[in-house]
Amino acid sequence: MTYCLGIKVNDGLVLAGDRRTSASVDDVRTYNKLHSFEFPGNRVFILLASGNLATTQAVLTQIQDDLENPEAAENLLTVRHMFDAAEYIGRLGVEARENVPGKDKEGESLHLESTFILAGQIAGEEPTLYMIYPAGNCISPAPEMPFLQIGESKYGKPILDRIIRPHVSLGDATRCALVSLESTMRSNISVGPPLDVIVYRRDSLEIDHRMQFDYSDPFYNQLQAEWTRQLEMAFQALPRFYWEKEESREQQEEIMLPQQQVQQQ
Amino acid sequence: MTYCLGIKVNDGLVLAGDRRTSASVDDVRTYNKLHSFEFPGNRVFILLASGNLATTQAVLTQIQDDLENPEAAENLLTVRHMFDAAEYIGRLGVEARENVPGKDKEGESLHLESTFILAGQIAGEEPTLYMIYPAGNCISPAPEMPFLQIGESKYGKPILDRIIRPHVSLGDATRCALVSLESTMRSNISVGPPLDVIVYRRDSLEIDHRMQFDYSDPFYNQLQAEWTRQLEMAFQALPRFYWEKEESREQQEEIMLPQQQVQQQ
Repeated sequence: MTYCLGIKVNDGLVLAGDRRTSASVDDVRTYNKLHSFEFPGNRVFILLASGNLATTQAVLTQIQDDLENPEAAENLLTVRHMFDAAEYIGRLGVEARENVPGKDKEGESLHLESTFILAGQIAGEEPTLYMIYPAGNCISPAPEMPFLQIGESKYGKPILDRIIRPHVSLGDATRCALVSLESTMRSNISVGPPLDVIVYRRDSLEIDHRMQFDYSDPFYNQLQAEWTRQLEMAFQALPRFYWEKEESREQQEEIMLPQQQVQQQ
Repeated sequence: MTYCLGIKVNDGLVLAGDRRTSASVDDVRTYNKLHSFEFPGNRVFILLASGNLATTQAVLTQIQDDLENPEAAENLLTVRHMFDAAEYIGRLGVEARENVPGKDKEGESLHLESTFILAGQIAGEEPTLYMIYPAGNCISPAPEMPFLQIGESKYGKPILDRIIRPHVSLGDATRCALVSLESTMRSNISVGPPLDVIVYRRDSLEIDHRMQFDYSDPFYNQLQAEWTRQLEMAFQALPRFYWEKEESREQQEEIMLPQQQVQQQ
């Protein structure tokens, strides 16, 4: 499994994902799921992938081939809008599955689908985020809840639902992405470190920050420890039930009892 | 969909669930998913259900029939151990599905399975928690992570993973169950209020507290508001990235600039 997410805030884009990939429980590897195509000053694309790794790699290879082939009908440099780039990658995904020679011979156990998040900006346009489905069609997120997730997305969704809004800073969006990944990794072993993060500042037309975090990374350890400590404090601040007061009073009375007996003697 | 959970701590058991049930998006109803069978001083059972509502109701009806039938081979009063009760309910679930007249005629769209959590205590035994699968077999949770979830379980799992340990109080376990349900309801509309909660204190052999929370409940509102406030504070306490310092310095320099210009004039 995989967990990748993309966030679009007013200041730019944050993309993050884990590196765990598993063909089976005894075939676990690490693989980078964040792929970038940078043309500084002109356009920047970041592609996140979940699903079948062969399909993903076929798409990445074809993207590169098309960029190097002057006769290609379309490539990431010729597409006019981000939406065209998303449709182009959607088509590559469908073609990659069509091209698998034994696709009809393996039965229902063969899952060739890959789902992508495409993020980036083309000069003169807004930075954008698209989810590209295995069928080749795509959506962008609602402006009020500007994030997309692929793969094992449920564990890490509540914190995004609470924090991510268009006005949050790139720093807060990046921290939120890491907390979302951290919650997922704690609850599901199919998502695992290292984590990759790309931060793109609006209109910079080049990637601003690339970060990788392993469990041995001091910053990541500090974030983990602080989040754990803060969550416990948050939890302790919640209101008490009426029956807890009764019970603590009962307990207090029980504790008082020996002393009262002493006084009565 | 449904989300129900059971927690077993040293002090007793906490059971909680939502009441939303939907046959389709235009057929949404509320239905209590926490069912209790109390024999004070002797034994207490709480049964939580997710899945096919007809199967669940058939099982509940059969449990009641068997209790009222002196010739029943087995019922909740004759089972010796909690494990026997779990196996008994597992068998009822399998039988309920077998008894559906048109079960083979509806094709793959017919999902008759129900999954249960059985919680309770029989005098002389430990309080226990079982997950009963549609196949009729069952498991109890690991002592170190003493909780079970059925239905839409992923959104609310991270907070349980962090907080629930055997030593936590019944109050903390109940608050954690509510936070877990609240996170799920925020992220998934198939889980919705009101929420039912049952608290069972170890060795009391009767249910100690039954609570129901709607969005209009003042205590629930206080818990919601406080958790939102605390989570935001927790989030703000996380460490900053190196590039945030640089950028805030840059921003500061930009702000300084006009003043410096004034001084130079």
